[in-house]
Amino acid sequence: MFDSLRWMRVKHDSPPGSLIYAGEGRDFAPFVEVCAYSRDALMERRLDPGESIAPAPDRVNLVVVVGIHDAETIRRVGADLGFPALALEDVMNAGQRAKFTLADDETAFVVLKHLAEIDGSLVSEQVSLFWRDNLVAVFLEREDDLLDGVLARIRKGKGRLRSEGGAYLLCAILDVLVDCNMAALTRFGELAEALEARLEGRTTDDLLGRLYTLKREVLLLRNQLVPMREMFKALLGEDADLPEPVLPFLRDAAGHHEQTVDAATTLHDILKSMIDYQISLLSMRTNRVMQFLTVIATIFIPLTFIAGVYGMNFEYMPELSWRYGYYYSLAIMGAVGAGMLVYFLRKRFL
Amino acid sequence: MFDSLRWMRVKHDSPPGSLIYAGEGRDFAPFVEVCAYSRDALMERRLDPGESIAPAPDRVNLVVVVGIHDAETIRRVGADLGFPALALEDVMNAGQRAKFTLADDETAFVVLKHLAEIDGSLVSEQVSLFWRDNLVAVFLEREDDLLDGVLARIRKGKGRLRSEGGAYLLCAILDVLVDCNMAALTRFGELAEALEARLEGRTTDDLLGRLYTLKREVLLLRNQLVPMREMFKALLGEDADLPEPVLPFLRDAAGHHEQTVDAATTLHDILKSMIDYQISLLSMRTNRVMQFLTVIATIFIPLTFIAGVYGMNFEYMPELSWRYGYYYSLAIMGAVGAGMLVYFLRKRFL
Amino acid sequence: MFDSLRWMRVKHDSPPGSLIYAGEGRDFAPFVEVCAYSRDALMERRLDPGESIAPAPDRVNLVVVVGIHDAETIRRVGADLGFPALALEDVMNAGQRAKFTLADDETAFVVLKHLAEIDGSLVSEQVSLFWRDNLVAVFLEREDDLLDGVLARIRKGKGRLRSEGGAYLLCAILDVLVDCNMAALTRFGELAEALEARLEGRTTDDLLGRLYTLKREVLLLRNQLVPMREMFKALLGEDADLPEPVLPFLRDAAGHHEQTVDAATTLHDILKSMIDYQISLLSMRTNRVMQFLTVIATIFIPLTFIAGVYGMNFEYMPELSWRYGYYYSLAIMGAVGAGMLVYFLRKRFL
Amino acid sequence: MFDSLRWMRVKHDSPPGSLIYAGEGRDFAPFVEVCAYSRDALMERRLDPGESIAPAPDRVNLVVVVGIHDAETIRRVGADLGFPALALEDVMNAGQRAKFTLADDETAFVVLKHLAEIDGSLVSEQVSLFWRDNLVAVFLEREDDLLDGVLARIRKGKGRLRSEGGAYLLCAILDVLVDCNMAALTRFGELAEALEARLEGRTTDDLLGRLYTLKREVLLLRNQLVPMREMFKALLGEDADLPEPVLPFLRDAAGHHEQTVDAATTLHDILKSMIDYQISLLSMRTNRVMQFLTVIATIFIPLTFIAGVYGMNFEYMPELSWRYGYYYSLAIMGAVGAGMLVYFLRKRFL
Amino acid sequence: MFDSLRWMRVKHDSPPGSLIYAGEGRDFAPFVEVCAYSRDALMERRLDPGESIAPAPDRVNLVVVVGIHDAETIRRVGADLGFPALALEDVMNAGQRAKFTLADDETAFVVLKHLAEIDGSLVSEQVSLFWRDNLVAVFLEREDDLLDGVLARIRKGKGRLRSEGGAYLLCAILDVLVDCNMAALTRFGELAEALEARLEGRTTDDLLGRLYTLKREVLLLRNQLVPMREMFKALLGEDADLPEPVLPFLRDAAGHHEQTVDAATTLHDILKSMIDYQISLLSMRTNRVMQFLTVIATIFIPLTFIAGVYGMNFEYMPELSWRYGYYYSLAIMGAVGAGMLVYFLRKRFL
Repeated sequence: MFDSLRWMRVKHDSPPGSLIYAGEGRDFAPFVEVCAYSRDALMERRLDPGESIAPAPDRVNLVVVVGIHDAETIRRVGADLGFPALALEDVMNAGQRAKFTLADDETAFVVLKHLAEIDGSLVSEQVSLFWRDNLVAVFLEREDDLLDGVLARIRKGKGRLRSEGGAYLLCAILDVLVDCNMAALTRFGELAEALEARLEGRTTDDLLGRLYTLKREVLLLRNQLVPMREMFKALLGEDADLPEPVLPFLRDAAGHHEQTVDAATTLHDILKSMIDYQISLLSMRTNRVMQFLTVIATIFIPLTFIAGVYGMNFEYMPELSWRYGYYYSLAIMGAVGAGMLVYFLRKRFL
Repeated sequence: MFDSLRWMRVKHDSPPGSLIYAGEGRDFAPFVEVCAYSRDALMERRLDPGESIAPAPDRVNLVVVVGIHDAETIRRVGADLGFPALALEDVMNAGQRAKFTLADDETAFVVLKHLAEIDGSLVSEQVSLFWRDNLVAVFLEREDDLLDGVLARIRKGKGRLRSEGGAYLLCAILDVLVDCNMAALTRFGELAEALEARLEGRTTDDLLGRLYTLKREVLLLRNQLVPMREMFKALLGEDADLPEPVLPFLRDAAGHHEQTVDAATTLHDILKSMIDYQISLLSMRTNRVMQFLTVIATIFIPLTFIAGVYGMNFEYMPELSWRYGYYYSLAIMGAVGAGMLVYFLRKRFL
Repeated sequence: MFDSLRWMRVKHDSPPGSLIYAGEGRDFAPFVEVCAYSRDALMERRLDPGESIAPAPDRVNLVVVVGIHDAETIRRVGADLGFPALALEDVMNAGQRAKFTLADDETAFVVLKHLAEIDGSLVSEQVSLFWRDNLVAVFLEREDDLLDGVLARIRKGKGRLRSEGGAYLLCAILDVLVDCNMAALTRFGELAEALEARLEGRTTDDLLGRLYTLKREVLLLRNQLVPMREMFKALLGEDADLPEPVLPFLRDAAGHHEQTVDAATTLHDILKSMIDYQISLLSMRTNRVMQFLTVIATIFIPLTFIAGVYGMNFEYMPELSWRYGYYYSLAIMGAVGAGMLVYFLRKRFL
Repeated sequence: MFDSLRWMRVKHDSPPGSLIYAGEGRDFAPFVEVCAYSRDALMERRLDPGESIAPAPDRVNLVVVVGIHDAETIRRVGADLGFPALALEDVMNAGQRAKFTLADDETAFVVLKHLAEIDGSLVSEQVSLFWRDNLVAVFLEREDDLLDGVLARIRKGKGRLRSEGGAYLLCAILDVLVDCNMAALTRFGELAEALEARLEGRTTDDLLGRLYTLKREVLLLRNQLVPMREMFKALLGEDADLPEPVLPFLRDAAGHHEQTVDAATTLHDILKSMIDYQISLLSMRTNRVMQFLTVIATIFIPLTFIAGVYGMNFEYMPELSWRYGYYYSLAIMGAVGAGMLVYFLRKRFL
Repeated sequence: MFDSLRWMRVKHDSPPGSLIYAGEGRDFAPFVEVCAYSRDALMERRLDPGESIAPAPDRVNLVVVVGIHDAETIRRVGADLGFPALALEDVMNAGQRAKFTLADDETAFVVLKHLAEIDGSLVSEQVSLFWRDNLVAVFLEREDDLLDGVLARIRKGKGRLRSEGGAYLLCAILDVLVDCNMAALTRFGELAEALEARLEGRTTDDLLGRLYTLKREVLLLRNQLVPMREMFKALLGEDADLPEPVLPFLRDAAGHHEQTVDAATTLHDILKSMIDYQISLLSMRTNRVMQFLTVIATIFIPLTFIAGVYGMNFEYMPELSWRYGYYYSLAIMGAVGAGMLVYFLRKRFL
């Protein structure tokens, strides 16, 4: 049920700033894509392995690194763009908490969690962002469609994105990521709804187990989303020094993130309540069945006793030689059984 | 049981400021009503489709937009009144958290939740409010009677409302909305009371399920009411820059909202406790019934054994030929049964 | 079990400042008592219906309004003493949260909850207080003995109360109210103690239900006491502008209120724990009884089987014709039964 | 189980500053001990009843009042040392919350809780402290060994205590009290350990009841220790105006108090978890016993039925006259019983 | 299950600053290792017993004291290095909370918790650190490999550690300690995963007991990790006065510590949920077995009754002399049994 302790990734015993990958095993070669645009021009391409990055000074440069499991790639990108080792270490630690810090005097560094749907299951991927003037660098754990919308808006050549600077690009990416998280969470909600519909019929161990798993996953996701609050708060503060015009967009994204955290908390509470309800329902049903069976047994046990009495072999048992003794005995048994049945029905034991 | 994930509405992957509706499907055409009043004059009418809004500069203008599911209507109203796209986007996102922001330097923007009774069930509707000088614009999800009281007071032509400005109108609407929420919550309380009265007689799965549903709904409503606290706090702060004379009215509304949140929290706690009590009661009753049945069975089982013994067919069983053997055996069985009964009664097993 | 939703009183849809009673039905006519005292003089009397109040400028004036369900009385008292409508509205809303506000620039307005014993049951009554210079006005829901101690101290003619101003009188009333609340809570504690003593003997549905009711009532009371903290804090702050010499007395009362809230929290925790313990005790007892009964049944069932075997009517059953077959069979049954009994005793099933 | 509501002591309806004892009944006469020391001199003696206290101006004066149940003694000591009535009232209210206030401009007043072992059981005693320049006055509920260590250090004539002023003495007393509390809590831990060891063997109602009692007592103690945090914080703040050199000692004591509160919280959590575990263990054991018994009964019931069939008295029952009918029937019964046993064992029902 | 109350170590009743060991019994002689390095030179050796420490003024001095149970050693080291007694007292109190204080005007004093794996089980060891200029002194409870990585980096002669001062060394040690804690916690996660895998098969008391123990240990560890937050916050504050260049490293370590605390909280929540699930699973399984057994018994009891009826010895029982009476009776019994079976299967009782 633990997904390989994915959420407890650790870095090893080494000096601060060491580039050591801590995360799931990956078997693809990391690659780097660069997109440089201004209002009038757009250049977009995937770098050759080993090629160094040279940001165009008069354009907005978006550098996307896909794959954070190769220290050499990370080190080289960091060296090309001048990011400090301490921040690069955090990029490679996929279990990093969401946070905002200043990587150096000019570069903002943001770590985020992105709830992505990979191969049909929902996982929390780490996204690291650097922003300095007209440069935005994004590090993804693996290829996903997080940035597709942003890239499409860049390619369209119109819209505000092309005419604004790096800070606006940063906000656009944050906005997209927050919306993705909410969408992913909604899928959990739908799963819970579907499970609940199936539980209406008949609760089974298996379904209950899946409810528990769902609850645990929502808890883990929520715990990863919560530190993003502080990240947004710090990003809106003075330290980040973002240009005034993008602040409303950032505040908007932060507000949507609050909505996501609220929804995760509420979903967790609802799943907890749902599990409690299913368990008490199940217990009530079992109890009712047992009670029904016990009532039946309890009705027949005295009758069997009466039959047993007239099955005794005493020589002197006057009833045995009565003409209608057998019928009398049946009548008595019927009366006792019916009497108990009526009593139990009245007492609502059945 | 999830009401279509109503509370987890999302916006889609699109640039910030895109006007995309996120909410329940609606099948009516949105319309706009305008009411412009001064101390001496009152103009009130529903706009024709496509007609643009021209606020009267010397009057207080109340613009009510009913229906937020049509991007064109929202865009047009926003353009006529000069509201920025980022705020309009939030107007159309019916899953928005309650909040206060400055839409621009002059316009305050408030999102609220209104607990309305629609077709006999209680739902949380989103209400968005813009306020700028003498203009108040209200966006409702659908037609409801939230503003009836305020409009009636405007029409009456006397009372303070007619002689005050837009800020007072804003406060009057907030006051009415908070009172509506409290009234809606009281209905939940009454439902809980009614359910509890029915549970006194006999707990059933169904009633217990409805208690759980009620608890969940109160939780969802409470979680939507809580962010309104921050909204009120921000509205009372310096940013909102409301005129001094309306602040006592706003503070009053904020106080009543606190009362509503308190009541929702308390109601949730009480429902939780009620469910716990019903479950333990139910479990106790089942246990008592089972114990009663088991006592009966346990009394007859040894008696049946004795009857079984004298039903054995051994040739040499002296008791069988005794003159009063049968009566002796009945006496023994009676004594054993009575002894057990007395013992069980004394031990309070029955 | 809900006491008529007493704690969820609402005001109706009407402009702020409307005087509409929200509370329990009352059938007595409200009345007003006035007590004006200085160090040397004392005047005390009940006003005639319709008589207006004229505070004596050179004395401390205590105005006590008993009954808040008549809008006319409240309006008249408010008009005589110059209290604003917004505060008077809160006076009539008996479900108001405890709070402190400035009614106007000179008048402090305080809403409190008073746990009173009325007709043998504990209820939370609302007490509203206005203070302006030498005037203190108290609004009570109905006649109770809250102010008896204060009045007695005024009448005695000595003691600090007679020689101090209105602020000291206000503090004296707050002090008495806080002490009353603690005393009322102690009664709950005694009730819980008494219930627990009775539970020692035998837990019943009824007693358990009363524990639940007690817990709920303590919760409701505690939730009403908590907002009084903020009230005291605001009253001790700069806004209230109370004279320096009375602050130690107020701080003392605030400290005692903290003690009351602590006691309510602790009492709630203890009742919760008590209920959990009783339920688990009950469940353990039931289980033990069922186990005892089942052991008895389980011992006799194999014996009955053996008797059943020798009750079969096969023609060739050698044991049947043995001289001591009957006794042998009894011996076997005795041995089996005794063996099972010993086994069950050793295994501590009994 | 409630220890006489000791924790809910109340003062009666009387003016603030009235000296009325609220606490347990005491039957000893309060007495006062005075200890005045400088670097070179030491005077220590118990005052005669009625004797007044005259602090020596050139020495550090420690006044210990044992017994707070006699208003006259408290009043007289307060008058001799010039303590205000409001503080003395709190001294006599043994249910007072821990707190720090300034009794007057020069005198600090501290209320604390001391977990003492009296007659083999742990109780929380109230300790009130006044500090003014070179005077420290301590009020204890009854004679205990709290101050023995401090007095011994004073008597020894060396060590820092003799050469420092009243503030250092105050800190030394606080330090000793905090250490005592931790030691008392450790005893609870040991009790819990001992109980748990006994529970390993066999859970009984009684042991479970004692665990519940222990948990409740730890809760009550913790709730009394928590307000001491604020007391320490206030004492370290500017209001208390303690001399700079004693602050490290006070900070140290405050740190140890934090440790005590942490330990109490953890102990409470552990006791809660322990009770949950014992209950689930108990429930599992009962269930297993019931299952075992039911399996036995379920095996014999079909066998008894078969025996019953061949005990029927039909005239034409061919099996009855078979030569080996009896043995066949025994074989069938053996086969059925063994088959069921194997089936139940395989299904792990036993 | 309590590990000897290790977490509730107390100091005894003695003046502040007394060096008294409070912790587990230790049977080894404490020793002191000194390592003095500059960019070019490195001296490393274990001191002889009784040898005094003389820090080299032009190098960074790392003093490691292994064993805190001998007051004489601690006192001597403290005297050599000039640490105040109040801090040394905390060094010897192994139950100390994590904290940062200034030991004196120049010396920072930090207490931390280190989760170490000793002899195969995880324990929380106390680590005390002093830092003054170029001196770092570390006190360990016993020999462990915490500092191996740091020492190896010192010995390697390259890397930043050799060229930086004492503050960087302090940060390096904190960084290593935080990483160790996370690694230790991950082991708990793995243990929980392994236990859960075994539980899938069959829940037993023993496995459930180990889950409870694991949960309790995670709780204890978490409660010890939480105060380290405040320690880091204080260390990053102005009081600590650490040189600007090491702050990013310290902030990084503090961030990793947050991650550790988050992981511990999440792990605790998961273990709690896991236990709840296992208990409900177990209860459901037991209920299902009991229901199965009861169904079997309930089917046979009426059949046994029918057989009993025809085993009665009445002289006039017409069925007994019917030619096919026996077969009829068998058919009836078969029909009744099959009917009940079908009914129970349809009702899903089996």
